[in-house]
Amino acid sequence: MTAYQDLEARFRRLGVLGGVEQVLHWDRAVMMPQGGATARSDQLAELSRLEHDLMTAPEMADLLAAAAETTSELSPWQRANLGGMQRLWRHATALPGDLVTALSHANSACEMIWREARGRNDFTAVVPALETVLARVRDKAQAKAVALDLGPYDALLDAYDPGMRQAEIDAIFGDLRGFLPDLIGQVIDRQAAGPALLPLGGEITVAAQRALGERIMAAIGFDTDFGRLDVSHHPFTAGVPDDVRITTRYKEGAFTESLMGVIHETGHALYERGLPEAWRWQPVGVARGMTIHESQSLLMEMQACRSPAFVSFATPIMRDTFAGTGPAWAADNLLRLYHKVDRTPIRVEADEVMYPAHILLRYDLETAMVAGDLAVADLPGAWCDGMRALLGIDVADDKDGCMQDIHWYGGDFGYFPTYTLGALAAAQLFRAACDADAGVMAGIGRGDFTPLLAWLRAHVHSKGSSLGTNELLEEATGAPLGVAAFRAHIDARYLA
Amino acid sequence: MTAYQDLEARFRRLGVLGGVEQVLHWDRAVMMPQGGATARSDQLAELSRLEHDLMTAPEMADLLAAAAETTSELSPWQRANLGGMQRLWRHATALPGDLVTALSHANSACEMIWREARGRNDFTAVVPALETVLARVRDKAQAKAVALDLGPYDALLDAYDPGMRQAEIDAIFGDLRGFLPDLIGQVIDRQAAGPALLPLGGEITVAAQRALGERIMAAIGFDTDFGRLDVSHHPFTAGVPDDVRITTRYKEGAFTESLMGVIHETGHALYERGLPEAWRWQPVGVARGMTIHESQSLLMEMQACRSPAFVSFATPIMRDTFAGTGPAWAADNLLRLYHKVDRTPIRVEADEVMYPAHILLRYDLETAMVAGDLAVADLPGAWCDGMRALLGIDVADDKDGCMQDIHWYGGDFGYFPTYTLGALAAAQLFRAACDADAGVMAGIGRGDFTPLLAWLRAHVHSKGSSLGTNELLEEATGAPLGVAAFRAHIDARYLA
Repeated sequence: MTAYQDLEARFRRLGVLGGVEQVLHWDRAVMMPQGGATARSDQLAELSRLEHDLMTAPEMADLLAAAAETTSELSPWQRANLGGMQRLWRHATALPGDLVTALSHANSACEMIWREARGRNDFTAVVPALETVLARVRDKAQAKAVALDLGPYDALLDAYDPGMRQAEIDAIFGDLRGFLPDLIGQVIDRQAAGPALLPLGGEITVAAQRALGERIMAAIGFDTDFGRLDVSHHPFTAGVPDDVRITTRYKEGAFTESLMGVIHETGHALYERGLPEAWRWQPVGVARGMTIHESQSLLMEMQACRSPAFVSFATPIMRDTFAGTGPAWAADNLLRLYHKVDRTPIRVEADEVMYPAHILLRYDLETAMVAGDLAVADLPGAWCDGMRALLGIDVADDKDGCMQDIHWYGGDFGYFPTYTLGALAAAQLFRAACDADAGVMAGIGRGDFTPLLAWLRAHVHSKGSSLGTNELLEEATGAPLGVAAFRAHIDARYLA
Repeated sequence: MTAYQDLEARFRRLGVLGGVEQVLHWDRAVMMPQGGATARSDQLAELSRLEHDLMTAPEMADLLAAAAETTSELSPWQRANLGGMQRLWRHATALPGDLVTALSHANSACEMIWREARGRNDFTAVVPALETVLARVRDKAQAKAVALDLGPYDALLDAYDPGMRQAEIDAIFGDLRGFLPDLIGQVIDRQAAGPALLPLGGEITVAAQRALGERIMAAIGFDTDFGRLDVSHHPFTAGVPDDVRITTRYKEGAFTESLMGVIHETGHALYERGLPEAWRWQPVGVARGMTIHESQSLLMEMQACRSPAFVSFATPIMRDTFAGTGPAWAADNLLRLYHKVDRTPIRVEADEVMYPAHILLRYDLETAMVAGDLAVADLPGAWCDGMRALLGIDVADDKDGCMQDIHWYGGDFGYFPTYTLGALAAAQLFRAACDADAGVMAGIGRGDFTPLLAWLRAHVHSKGSSLGTNELLEEATGAPLGVAAFRAHIDARYLA
């Protein structure tokens, strides 16, 4: 057995155990009664320990070094696989054990305080805990920066989108910053001058919403022989490629969110399902990172299924499903509903035009915090300033201001930008798919996603992690990640 | 850290991993789409490997030996825990690796052939595979016999009911054999002379059955903050003590099986839930074995919930639930339904009077097979002879004869007797509970299981594995396992 083969066997075990964790996380969010919480924590902690022991076995450094000597004998995918192994091993071994423990404790404690303090709109109460989280995150960034030979924020980012760098985001977000605030104003003014949105009547039961979601996800290509749809507090995708579990949530009387939730998670699920089977459980066989993952969900949700062609196709189905009648249930009103742009202060409720502005704000603030240029105590003020400048919103309170997202309070720094990088990639990939095959858009207009899925399988899903985010986008679209396709999409949809 | 403390830490990890396996098994039977089968097998195989590595770590033998030197310093529970560790370690290390692999392959192959051949009623087709299984099972019995210093069949039995021995079963089953065939005839004759069973009308939907099951399981004491009820092909109980998952199955138009299934599994679940929390994940903290486990399900199903007192209590609830009217839905007819005794050739459909006769047959045949006294090819003939002698039934075909149960075809020898040992223990424990507290039976008559559950918690559940099966029964009932209480129960219910 060569060093590389030995490593493949070891990483296969790690990949399989990662699948076990997926089941345990899914079950906790979807099925587990509350009494099971302690046992489940024990189970997840034991799996972490076993994975850590496998990853940091004393012979790993030598195996990785020996395999690196033989790259000329490896295929391109094997080389990419080895690169993924090296990266994962460096991340895993970068932090001393006591820092891992300190991070885990700081994050758990702060998250618990945040849950309670947010309800009381009491930012002051969470300041000390968030200061501790930030201090430990900065320690982590520093330690990983040394191990990965990167800047501190880059080292955090690399865990969510391997290879993505702050300098690249600065350039892309700089372009976005240049036009987005004005664009938001133009779209809102234009919508205010247009016809008003008619409120939907009808019988929008949860059972009918579920039936609609199942019908649409099947049309998009979700095969229930290889996955499930369930309910959870926050929608998510989990599982393994041959058993992908997605969730949504239902509100009695309102279907737009549950349906788009299903479509969004179906985009994630199809990516997982289309990953290269020959590289199952290997680092090169997994999704490229959060940017490409989010591009797949947003491509389905924002590009394909909010398109006039799809909404026209879906309108009679929606009317039938919910016993909807009259002009409120006509395609033009449903399209207005799905294209409504508002200055909402809440990120998770934001439309596709406002959303990137939310992310610009968070990116500015978290890079400043990680760099030591913004103190936790100054966060509410900086938040209010940024909301006014970037989104044109006066923040009412901290609860729906800088306390609205769990990310920082749970120790997640470096994650936020991937949402908007994903939105940009979605626009770019969808444009390329439509340009490559006129059947893509024609199919969507009759509820047939086969041509779109075929293009995504060939140019995104089947690539696994064999290419970097930008390499993948260049091969698929002819250009690295940028704002052009996104801007053209927004212009065409909202200002044409 | 003492050797004993070191062992506790190691077995805690094994216990936690056992809980992970429970989630994966439950999910596979209840939630998993078929596409997930291969990944799930990989996950379970990886967990087996990790558990095997933990259990057979080179230092284990020394640790167990060192801890055994210090028993005078251990509490009685710690000593019982150490005994459980030694037993588990001996079972795990008894088999050479190639025999473990051979067993696994033989069992999987035979089970697959059996599924197909059973449909065609073709015993001949499964003979070679079952011969291989039996040969490997006899190898296993021999290897474990050496490691555990037991007879071969005892060594198999010990995996299902630690400490139970063939000689003890021979004695108990000898008593049963002495009266059961005659008793069956008497009960059937008596029922033939009594009023006929009136067929139930009503609206027996699956939703109504589920609602009834949930109501009754809650009355018995199942707390859904610490467990769930779901649907699976075969009812079972899985999970961990604070998160016990039970399943049942529903037939449109017939509720008796689904309801008794829920009650049976609730009995198993309450046992798990009542295990001693201070010994969580330790060998002494788990259920005593299959005999006591089955006693808890059968006590609820057969003793408590088929009693006239409970059926009278449940009659108006059943009528309400299923819109039942008229004399068919009177308590006396429902009681006749739940006490019907028939010469059914199928074990899993058998009533409590016939069931032990099914087990006597299987016990005779599997002990003979393990001893080398019965060849696989001769199984159908021996089966027919035994069915006639013990159950008074002429077997129609092998499909519903010696091919009806999966156990042998999947390599499970030594399991069958625990079903009937459990039924005997159930009668004995229920008798003791009623004798100890008149409130037990009075409570059941008004749907209040609190007194019964309190007695079971104190005398069975909280004991974990600190006592042997017979020690537990002697402490709880004043006598070791025997047939007297069961016979008295059958006489009182069916012949009084």
